[in-house]
Amino acid sequence: MNKRKIINDPVYDGFLSVDDPVILQVIDHPWFQRQRRIKQLGLTYLVYPGAMHTRFSHMLGALNLMNRALEVLQQKGVEITDEECRGAKLAILLHDIGHGPFSHTSERVFVDVPHEEITLMMMERINGEMGGALDTAIAIFSNTYHKHFLHQLVSSQLDMDRLDYLGRDSFFTGVSEGIVGTDRIISMLNVHDDELVVDEKGIYSVEKFIISRRLMYWQVYMHKTVIAADQVLLNILKRARELDPTVFRLDPRSPEFLDQFALLDDDDVMVAVKHWRQSGDEILGSLCGSLVDRRLPAIQFGCEPFGNGEVGEASYFEGTGMLRNRSYDFADQEIKVLYKDGRCLPISEASDQLDRHFLEKQVTKYYHYRPKQGSVS
Amino acid sequence: MNKRKIINDPVYDGFLSVDDPVILQVIDHPWFQRQRRIKQLGLTYLVYPGAMHTRFSHMLGALNLMNRALEVLQQKGVEITDEECRGAKLAILLHDIGHGPFSHTSERVFVDVPHEEITLMMMERINGEMGGALDTAIAIFSNTYHKHFLHQLVSSQLDMDRLDYLGRDSFFTGVSEGIVGTDRIISMLNVHDDELVVDEKGIYSVEKFIISRRLMYWQVYMHKTVIAADQVLLNILKRARELDPTVFRLDPRSPEFLDQFALLDDDDVMVAVKHWRQSGDEILGSLCGSLVDRRLPAIQFGCEPFGNGEVGEASYFEGTGMLRNRSYDFADQEIKVLYKDGRCLPISEASDQLDRHFLEKQVTKYYHYRPKQGSVS
Amino acid sequence: MNKRKIINDPVYDGFLSVDDPVILQVIDHPWFQRQRRIKQLGLTYLVYPGAMHTRFSHMLGALNLMNRALEVLQQKGVEITDEECRGAKLAILLHDIGHGPFSHTSERVFVDVPHEEITLMMMERINGEMGGALDTAIAIFSNTYHKHFLHQLVSSQLDMDRLDYLGRDSFFTGVSEGIVGTDRIISMLNVHDDELVVDEKGIYSVEKFIISRRLMYWQVYMHKTVIAADQVLLNILKRARELDPTVFRLDPRSPEFLDQFALLDDDDVMVAVKHWRQSGDEILGSLCGSLVDRRLPAIQFGCEPFGNGEVGEASYFEGTGMLRNRSYDFADQEIKVLYKDGRCLPISEASDQLDRHFLEKQVTKYYHYRPKQGSVS
Amino acid sequence: MNKRKIINDPVYDGFLSVDDPVILQVIDHPWFQRQRRIKQLGLTYLVYPGAMHTRFSHMLGALNLMNRALEVLQQKGVEITDEECRGAKLAILLHDIGHGPFSHTSERVFVDVPHEEITLMMMERINGEMGGALDTAIAIFSNTYHKHFLHQLVSSQLDMDRLDYLGRDSFFTGVSEGIVGTDRIISMLNVHDDELVVDEKGIYSVEKFIISRRLMYWQVYMHKTVIAADQVLLNILKRARELDPTVFRLDPRSPEFLDQFALLDDDDVMVAVKHWRQSGDEILGSLCGSLVDRRLPAIQFGCEPFGNGEVGEASYFEGTGMLRNRSYDFADQEIKVLYKDGRCLPISEASDQLDRHFLEKQVTKYYHYRPKQGSVS
Repeated sequence: MNKRKIINDPVYDGFLSVDDPVILQVIDHPWFQRQRRIKQLGLTYLVYPGAMHTRFSHMLGALNLMNRALEVLQQKGVEITDEECRGAKLAILLHDIGHGPFSHTSERVFVDVPHEEITLMMMERINGEMGGALDTAIAIFSNTYHKHFLHQLVSSQLDMDRLDYLGRDSFFTGVSEGIVGTDRIISMLNVHDDELVVDEKGIYSVEKFIISRRLMYWQVYMHKTVIAADQVLLNILKRARELDPTVFRLDPRSPEFLDQFALLDDDDVMVAVKHWRQSGDEILGSLCGSLVDRRLPAIQFGCEPFGNGEVGEASYFEGTGMLRNRSYDFADQEIKVLYKDGRCLPISEASDQLDRHFLEKQVTKYYHYRPKQGSVS
Repeated sequence: MNKRKIINDPVYDGFLSVDDPVILQVIDHPWFQRQRRIKQLGLTYLVYPGAMHTRFSHMLGALNLMNRALEVLQQKGVEITDEECRGAKLAILLHDIGHGPFSHTSERVFVDVPHEEITLMMMERINGEMGGALDTAIAIFSNTYHKHFLHQLVSSQLDMDRLDYLGRDSFFTGVSEGIVGTDRIISMLNVHDDELVVDEKGIYSVEKFIISRRLMYWQVYMHKTVIAADQVLLNILKRARELDPTVFRLDPRSPEFLDQFALLDDDDVMVAVKHWRQSGDEILGSLCGSLVDRRLPAIQFGCEPFGNGEVGEASYFEGTGMLRNRSYDFADQEIKVLYKDGRCLPISEASDQLDRHFLEKQVTKYYHYRPKQGSVS
Repeated sequence: MNKRKIINDPVYDGFLSVDDPVILQVIDHPWFQRQRRIKQLGLTYLVYPGAMHTRFSHMLGALNLMNRALEVLQQKGVEITDEECRGAKLAILLHDIGHGPFSHTSERVFVDVPHEEITLMMMERINGEMGGALDTAIAIFSNTYHKHFLHQLVSSQLDMDRLDYLGRDSFFTGVSEGIVGTDRIISMLNVHDDELVVDEKGIYSVEKFIISRRLMYWQVYMHKTVIAADQVLLNILKRARELDPTVFRLDPRSPEFLDQFALLDDDDVMVAVKHWRQSGDEILGSLCGSLVDRRLPAIQFGCEPFGNGEVGEASYFEGTGMLRNRSYDFADQEIKVLYKDGRCLPISEASDQLDRHFLEKQVTKYYHYRPKQGSVS
Repeated sequence: MNKRKIINDPVYDGFLSVDDPVILQVIDHPWFQRQRRIKQLGLTYLVYPGAMHTRFSHMLGALNLMNRALEVLQQKGVEITDEECRGAKLAILLHDIGHGPFSHTSERVFVDVPHEEITLMMMERINGEMGGALDTAIAIFSNTYHKHFLHQLVSSQLDMDRLDYLGRDSFFTGVSEGIVGTDRIISMLNVHDDELVVDEKGIYSVEKFIISRRLMYWQVYMHKTVIAADQVLLNILKRARELDPTVFRLDPRSPEFLDQFALLDDDDVMVAVKHWRQSGDEILGSLCGSLVDRRLPAIQFGCEPFGNGEVGEASYFEGTGMLRNRSYDFADQEIKVLYKDGRCLPISEASDQLDRHFLEKQVTKYYHYRPKQGSVS
């Protein structure tokens, strides 16, 4: 039974073709299907109305890129067995399965476990259900597999995850700043001393990639109004918990934890917010109304820390915070460039444009949000 | 106070610019913001994962096209006053505001009133709140305004609604068949004897538009699997009503009707479906599970009617139906082409490619859905 | 020596990757490089200024599609040997190598041999130079190879030639009507009884393809002004020949024929036209001036034949003609659709939209061109 | 007579609409039409086969952007009269009219006058023919017009010229690195104290623009192989001149200079090169063959100067040189950002990403070209 499935995707040529029955089985798993109900960018759609795309589509998109990357590497003579191919594909396919609703905003609200750990727990459970079919995938994901470059395809400064989300977020927001020459970068990938590297000719594309990420960071991911909306959602959850400590609270030690967690998605949060709007509590009602009707607080960015926000009731409506971005992480393993003559240099030395000064630069911004003038808290 | 707002949209150049305070006020209305939570294509995302786009984005997109169309017509010497411009913009902006969740599937389930009527009721209520600022818009929308072509821009065989949704649905599904030369068609619009017409040079673009609609109809709007998913949702709502007749039932005669209706969106339906899955009723639980986890029935299309589906319990899991499409409606007013020599001919006569035979052709398909082999109802 | 070359192409993902040394050698051949100086669409750039793209880029683009098609077929279990793969690639790569300058306009002017024959002559000469490396390619091209479907990939109603030129011409003219879901069509290709067929799911894409071709035909290939410009060029060559019968005349029986032919490209024709402008002959000078400065004759299309144009001198400036198009050729082998149940039907039966009536329809147009009012011949 | 012309352009929405009779008259001028035969990027098509686009299409594209920019500024309340609008449009339309064939390579070869001066001479001649219709355009172009920002729209670090060529070159080469959010930048333009500035919200788009230019510089404009091809063309012209000093030599003091210059285009150069290939001179023949058949020298880039190339005959086949790029010019007037609070800061202070260090950075590369191993000079 050689079933072949075509999954539509507007980002790459319109579709992805899958024929591995193990991969098809994972895609059909309820926990994977659940990611259809979790938006990739949370509340960002309040600023970029097209940004309704889901983690489901991102995970499949990353699989698409992994397919191509493995093909390119094999064509260049890198040895990758069939089992390793499948493992790398499954690892990238499942790399975000542990995300809950509005993950980047409220991860620690629902359960005090980072999403990477939940991802691993879920992978292991599915692996059990599938009789060990995910063994290699889990080893690659956890970076215990002996071929290190396979893990780097899943998680590194130039992995299929970042390549997909940058292109995908750019497509759905309409922000052309994030467009990356994905195909070109992938065609330039290579392996040198068990490390994922980029062929010399790909150096400009990598520069573009690093810069695109930086620009997307401020133009989309840390957009003022998105930060303001995130704060409202956080304050809603905080207030709701004060009124009822059991709200959306899960215990990771419970044996039903994963099953309960897998029931939660964006829809539940938004329906609860609409429901709490009618609750007797004035603070909670007001916060929920401002999110549902999109009457968001004013927010100001600055280079110096703001004084602390108000205390007491006002603290639900006003506050301060800090954002920091470095486009490139030296602590992490550097992106390396492979020259025709065999030399292999980190991008910070290889690039004429992006020297260490540029790459190390950290941008820190402080913010202060408070009710818009004229609006009633 | 000349506030100017830029709204991001990946479909056209990345954004829409609005500076009319009346239009901005309408966009900020909670009933308009609610359309952020209603998907344009309902359950289609189960086949085309990118199709998460909302009615909110469609209504703004249609406004964008209206802006351009009015500009083109004025440049060609068609007289349109400022108040008429605003009226036409508000009419297209609000033309879908009466849609409820999963509208095309379940319109008559929530309330037995067509969405066009609810739209009008909502426009009138907002008009009251805004001191009559929507008078002209309502006249244009209801086709009682003396300049008929303004209504045709909002609702006709070549209106801004269709132009936007065709392009938008094509963009988000990734189905290139629906790509339309929107800008070119709009640049060819003209008015002749108070009727919206197309300049001679635009004839090929109109042909493409008619054909694209037809192809999108079968490839997206009436996609087999989408029809199957719609049937599951309908059966869920039918069963839920049998168990509790008050479920999601609204009374259009109630004075609170519009306010209650405006509280409903896609999220409520999906959360209810997840909730009902745990209900004691086996039928309802099974149906809900199949929608949530995307285990949809098998569906078969044919040219002849299928025998009736099963009776009794099975009727929730198996059934038949019919779909019909004609790409072009002769009963409706025909699209007209204006020649340089002053003649004005209907497209069915003007087009060499699309003669009456092609345009009149009606395609009817019958379908039969039933549980996939191996799955348990 | 495993040289790998990346050739940039804006149409598909930005590039094409080639590593077969035989293919690289053919691309480097002066006769192949010469196609960089022959525009794919001749004088069409006088109407669509972006349409400067060359046969060189088309031939490489068709190779790109062939690569993908062969991969898809192999994945579906169609047996294709390495030598056959290379043969099919070389056949499509060279399928247009015999084109001369402004081919569709003036093919018979330079030499009275159809370009397909010159292509074959050139392929055979190169084959000699390369020690028979093109044997399989020539057999496939000439349809003498025993696996018929390989020829169909090169030349049929759904070949890589048409798929590339439709998409490419659409890209460079900016006429969105021609956009075809190329990747999707290719992913739907299959082989049944040694015939190239399309899987059932690809039926809408094929419909779109047939319609796109038809629309491109009238909107681009037979655009009024392009026809007018072609007539001017033809009249220039006719007049130049009358004044000097040796002008651009090649003898296909001469042993140097191919070498001489390979020296000719668009540049030579345009420089000659600029040169003849200064010739003493008033008729030739006037015609050349009108082409160089783009003062083209007026042209009128109609459904009935026009009376004959003027005689005598005027015949260089005025004339009539006929154009005919049928989107689909029944005489040629029909495009076939393969159903899951094993049936294989011609598209004219399989398609609900494009029935025999539509497909058979032939559009004939008559034209009459003459000097624009006010201009002096 | 209100003639309206639609000019097709694949880069922006597919077309440009022009109705000003003065602008239409300029577009129809033979000197403007001549730019159809001069490629925007010279020999770059030898590396990027799609890069056949012409200066004609660039000049019309820049006009398209100027139309939009003027509209945006007027909507923001900047006073611009109808005559100034026309002047700015004509200035950008004609800003490159003085370019000769392969301009950036061989400007000083054909005539020792910079192209800007020839542009001005041509504008003045056309102005004479058109009874002074270009007076304002010439003043704006020459920066003698009292409203300085109009000149900045034509020539500055953020002018319509650069915005068009970056987007256009990116489109036709397929190098996604050059994609710029053109529409967004234009929508952010404003005027402050008679200077063209960018609204605060446009800061990321300007950062992207500066970086894109820098990346395009090395990836396209200064691509190794393009530099090598340029050197071959220069050596061809040098050798041809040695053999015949009158070749392509024009005297700018001659009264027929402009008319003679206007006869020259890319076609003449390429036909001469093909012709010289057959000349008796072995050096010239060999150089010409290597350009026509694209057998280009090997070229090496380095950070240190190479020793001088060979002397004697070899000097036609081998040599060294230097390239330098700074993405941003402080000597030139800086791009300024206008804040909501009225402050106006140069981008080097306004940008968190692109500080002075980055912007000032100059990249210098040295190159050495010589015959490829195995090829015969």
